[in-house]
Amino acid sequence: MTSYFADNEDLKYYVERGIEWEPIVTLAENGFRQSDGFATLDEALEAYRSALELVGEFSATRIAPRVPEIAHAPIRLEGGEVVFPPALDAIFAQVRELGLAGMCLPRELGGMNLPMLLHYATGEMFARADASVMSHHGFHGGIALAMLFLSTMEGTTQYDRDSGRLVRTRFEAQIREIASGRAWGSMDMTEPGAGSDLGAITTRAAQDASGAWHVSGEKIFITSGHGKYHFVLARSEPQGGLAGLSLFLVPAWEQENGRRVRRVTLERLENKLGHHASATVALGFERAPAELVGERGQGFRQMLLLMNSGRLSVAFESLGVCEAAYRMARDHAASRVTMGRTLERHELIADRLDEMRSDIEGIRALAIAGAWHHELAHRSRLAEHHLARDAGEARRLGATAKQHQRAARQLTPLAKYLGAEKAVEITRHAIQLHGGCGYLREQGVEKLLRDSVLMPIYEGTSQIQALMATKDALGAAPWTLARRLARARWQQVSARDALARRVAYIESLSLGAQQHLQRRVTRDRLRRVVDGPAVEWLAALRAGPDPRHDFAPALLHAERLTRLLADAAVASTLQAQAARHPERRDVLARYLDRAEPRARHLHDVITTSGERLLRELAARARVQRSRT
Amino acid sequence: MTSYFADNEDLKYYVERGIEWEPIVTLAENGFRQSDGFATLDEALEAYRSALELVGEFSATRIAPRVPEIAHAPIRLEGGEVVFPPALDAIFAQVRELGLAGMCLPRELGGMNLPMLLHYATGEMFARADASVMSHHGFHGGIALAMLFLSTMEGTTQYDRDSGRLVRTRFEAQIREIASGRAWGSMDMTEPGAGSDLGAITTRAAQDASGAWHVSGEKIFITSGHGKYHFVLARSEPQGGLAGLSLFLVPAWEQENGRRVRRVTLERLENKLGHHASATVALGFERAPAELVGERGQGFRQMLLLMNSGRLSVAFESLGVCEAAYRMARDHAASRVTMGRTLERHELIADRLDEMRSDIEGIRALAIAGAWHHELAHRSRLAEHHLARDAGEARRLGATAKQHQRAARQLTPLAKYLGAEKAVEITRHAIQLHGGCGYLREQGVEKLLRDSVLMPIYEGTSQIQALMATKDALGAAPWTLARRLARARWQQVSARDALARRVAYIESLSLGAQQHLQRRVTRDRLRRVVDGPAVEWLAALRAGPDPRHDFAPALLHAERLTRLLADAAVASTLQAQAARHPERRDVLARYLDRAEPRARHLHDVITTSGERLLRELAARARVQRSRT
Repeated sequence: MTSYFADNEDLKYYVERGIEWEPIVTLAENGFRQSDGFATLDEALEAYRSALELVGEFSATRIAPRVPEIAHAPIRLEGGEVVFPPALDAIFAQVRELGLAGMCLPRELGGMNLPMLLHYATGEMFARADASVMSHHGFHGGIALAMLFLSTMEGTTQYDRDSGRLVRTRFEAQIREIASGRAWGSMDMTEPGAGSDLGAITTRAAQDASGAWHVSGEKIFITSGHGKYHFVLARSEPQGGLAGLSLFLVPAWEQENGRRVRRVTLERLENKLGHHASATVALGFERAPAELVGERGQGFRQMLLLMNSGRLSVAFESLGVCEAAYRMARDHAASRVTMGRTLERHELIADRLDEMRSDIEGIRALAIAGAWHHELAHRSRLAEHHLARDAGEARRLGATAKQHQRAARQLTPLAKYLGAEKAVEITRHAIQLHGGCGYLREQGVEKLLRDSVLMPIYEGTSQIQALMATKDALGAAPWTLARRLARARWQQVSARDALARRVAYIESLSLGAQQHLQRRVTRDRLRRVVDGPAVEWLAALRAGPDPRHDFAPALLHAERLTRLLADAAVASTLQAQAARHPERRDVLARYLDRAEPRARHLHDVITTSGERLLRELAARARVQRSRT
Repeated sequence: MTSYFADNEDLKYYVERGIEWEPIVTLAENGFRQSDGFATLDEALEAYRSALELVGEFSATRIAPRVPEIAHAPIRLEGGEVVFPPALDAIFAQVRELGLAGMCLPRELGGMNLPMLLHYATGEMFARADASVMSHHGFHGGIALAMLFLSTMEGTTQYDRDSGRLVRTRFEAQIREIASGRAWGSMDMTEPGAGSDLGAITTRAAQDASGAWHVSGEKIFITSGHGKYHFVLARSEPQGGLAGLSLFLVPAWEQENGRRVRRVTLERLENKLGHHASATVALGFERAPAELVGERGQGFRQMLLLMNSGRLSVAFESLGVCEAAYRMARDHAASRVTMGRTLERHELIADRLDEMRSDIEGIRALAIAGAWHHELAHRSRLAEHHLARDAGEARRLGATAKQHQRAARQLTPLAKYLGAEKAVEITRHAIQLHGGCGYLREQGVEKLLRDSVLMPIYEGTSQIQALMATKDALGAAPWTLARRLARARWQQVSARDALARRVAYIESLSLGAQQHLQRRVTRDRLRRVVDGPAVEWLAALRAGPDPRHDFAPALLHAERLTRLLADAAVASTLQAQAARHPERRDVLARYLDRAEPRARHLHDVITTSGERLLRELAARARVQRSRT
């Protein structure tokens, strides 16, 4: 039987050998102390494998074959409600039957208690069949997990420390409804005047005399926003910017006498380039009844924590799209004969296919590493606060959480960036490799490009990922960078393993570029300070860098630096695999073949170019300032 | 009034100063000897400028506003005929009224006798409004010119040597019909089993007892193939491969008692990703009456000559698409405020816009230089054979033709490659810069990406352009390469102008990469010879390189080398402009800022990588051979 799990050797490597399951399973199963849980690691892994096999077959045999039908019967907006075509309804009916919506929820809430890593890995397979089906599916279990997470953060979820069982949680009814597949939710952030810039949000939340909250405003580009539960970021405090935002749960409708009475209106169903199995809607809120979630003024911080998970999801979604495109291209190249040879044996084509494969292996390495750390951070933090049996255990768990959180924070924007950018690139080349056929709708490969173009836009654009990654990287202390660079350079010449030397080389190019930008930023800052009145020097220096002006050189190169950081992260991740599993040395070597000249190039551009444009921008800013 | 000419400073530079018009106008106007022609260069230029202004306004005010309507009322296939929507009919009715179809045809055939360069430059503006409108428009005048050209080649067109006037031509009736805009034609090459590999064509042409030709077979992906006149490449000779192909003119229908009786059937209208104002059809030929054009067995060679013009057209079409995308992105970035600044003042965005602009200037430089040489080659050759008044003049014209032909042959694949690849890249980044809005259909920017994806596919894929450019470049004698490299390196250190040194640096990287690949190919070839029986060495060496095996390293890097050749060609073209017009120094400097690290990178990858993949391909080929 066709299966997107069985046919994917690289994915199977992770499940069977690559992923260190033990710490995740131990935390998820709370030390195998639950009577209805797995008794051993092996038992858990056997169940995980079954879930992957199930979704692998489901995606290949139940979703993929319905994709042409979805293309011909699109989602409609009728009478103020979104209507799915029969093919989509059939898919999600089966998702419900299989219980996949509640896959990662605790058993106490009707879920299977599977690790989030499985949610991500199955997400790749869903997306390989259809990116937008994967996306809509994610707004079921994903939102239910978000509810549990937010409630835990605000202290309205209780666990039993002995058994580790969940005792009560604020959104239990909603979570059970979602876990059963009967409802789903969405994250409502973007507005016409606030995209990447959430500080510009104008949707308001106000309390009436009884203390009840109501939300009013407009939200756009809401993926799967035709669902029941909405987490809405709204301005509840007098402060402008991010500090005035709080998070609210807004039910879109209430049942009154068996009739649906809408509190949130569907203003518009967007007509998009692709991603057609997912509804993207504009929403109108007019004094919609809302519940405050967490503390007032903490809305942005709460969203940020949820966004990381969304970004990892898009990395896996992109991976699925890449995998689909690569396989179509590879199969076409293996069968099409031109000039006396199959396409795959033409050097130009072979080179492209080889690069696609290597890129995909790189994205998967980053995405899985990011998700692994993300899950360990989350579960360790939960255990620290709710399950630890003594202060010592809590301390250890807290330290573990912090360490994994740092790694997840570092890897997430890189995985999102690399996955999304490569999805567009690989799908485009897959079309090209099909020649004229690739341009035809019925071939199905152009659909992958149309879907892919959303990846670098939603859940934080590629540029936002790049700015985050760049600011984090350059935030390191100069002496830390210098020490790491010295170590990388030493490894580059002294490591016994040739592959380790090559990995260290890429790391030293990445660190060298970071050091260059950090120094460049510092130089600008010192100049700006010195240009000011001497009596203000000390105060200006103490105030630290001004991101608006001082970071300009780093921001100019942010995408390039991010690409370089991603290559370094992939290389070191694959190196760690190669150290444990010799069969991965080939994967690492192939990646390095591509990454080495690319890293040299990125280092070159970052350290030698951009000054002209920076001068032009500074001059334009001066003109603007002198005018105002 | 909005005009795509008036608002385009770079294009205006070429028309006003950049293009050396004098040799073209002198040839086109046959030394200003025609009574109904222009009397002076200035008079001609004044007319050219008017034509550009006309099309500039027409494109901006008559085509662009109709694009949304075309998207909503697509081209249909009804009763075996293609039906255009009213918006498209309205556009082409106006094109007819303005006489644009016959723009470049001689006055003797009802045309305006404008240079082909104007056809290309107006093509850019058409394409900026809508790529597929430009494309369909091109199958009017372009096919009429092809008819004249093919007839001239086969000797069925006569000119009066004194006046330079055309006396008679074989396809006069058809050309007049096309020039009036009432008909158009197409080039029918591709078949299901023959795309890039035209040697695999199976459509057959046979003569009946009376000597009349009939064509039978199937052609696919025929752009504007619902027209009346078809140039069909068909197998008329017993030889396989390219040598057995001849060219035929096949009228798709005849009028019988006022009724259209089809000789060529429209089997299918393709449903494409974009390019929706152009019909792409599949055609069935069943003993369709045909006329042989030119000599038997020369079909491929004739097509090649026509293809160069088609490729230049696509370079200009791509340019128009790039220009449209860049301007949408720039305007959006100038108006959208995020994080307290307009997008254009964010370093990351400013860098992207600056790169787009520089890329467009580079493509235009290449495309116009290519078209200029192409036109001079063509007109000099025509004059050599038909207008020269003595043997000396004919010899001079022949030499001029040869020199321009060489330059056109070098520049054409580079312009097509760079334009097409950049069209996809720039439109994709234009979407990205629009954020979520970019993904919506009504915004119009995603349409540009959908149109652009065809550019690297049709009229010879990017890979075909790369193979042609690579083979041509490496075909130079080793000592020629060595001499040019020595000169470039000398210039690189000794030129007095800093910009000239930088241009020489890129040239030397390009030549260095060519030399590396040439040596690499020679080494493989010698090894292959030496691996054979010693008695065959001499014969094998004399036989020259075997493109199937010996060129492998060059073919692997063909796209990268082509990109490098394009950068070197752009740099030297812009340098020549800067030498004459100081205001172009800034354009050159900005291009070099981008091209330098890129050229270093391409040289790096070409000279240091690919060996692993070549070994793998060779091993696979050995396994294959041992099996068969």
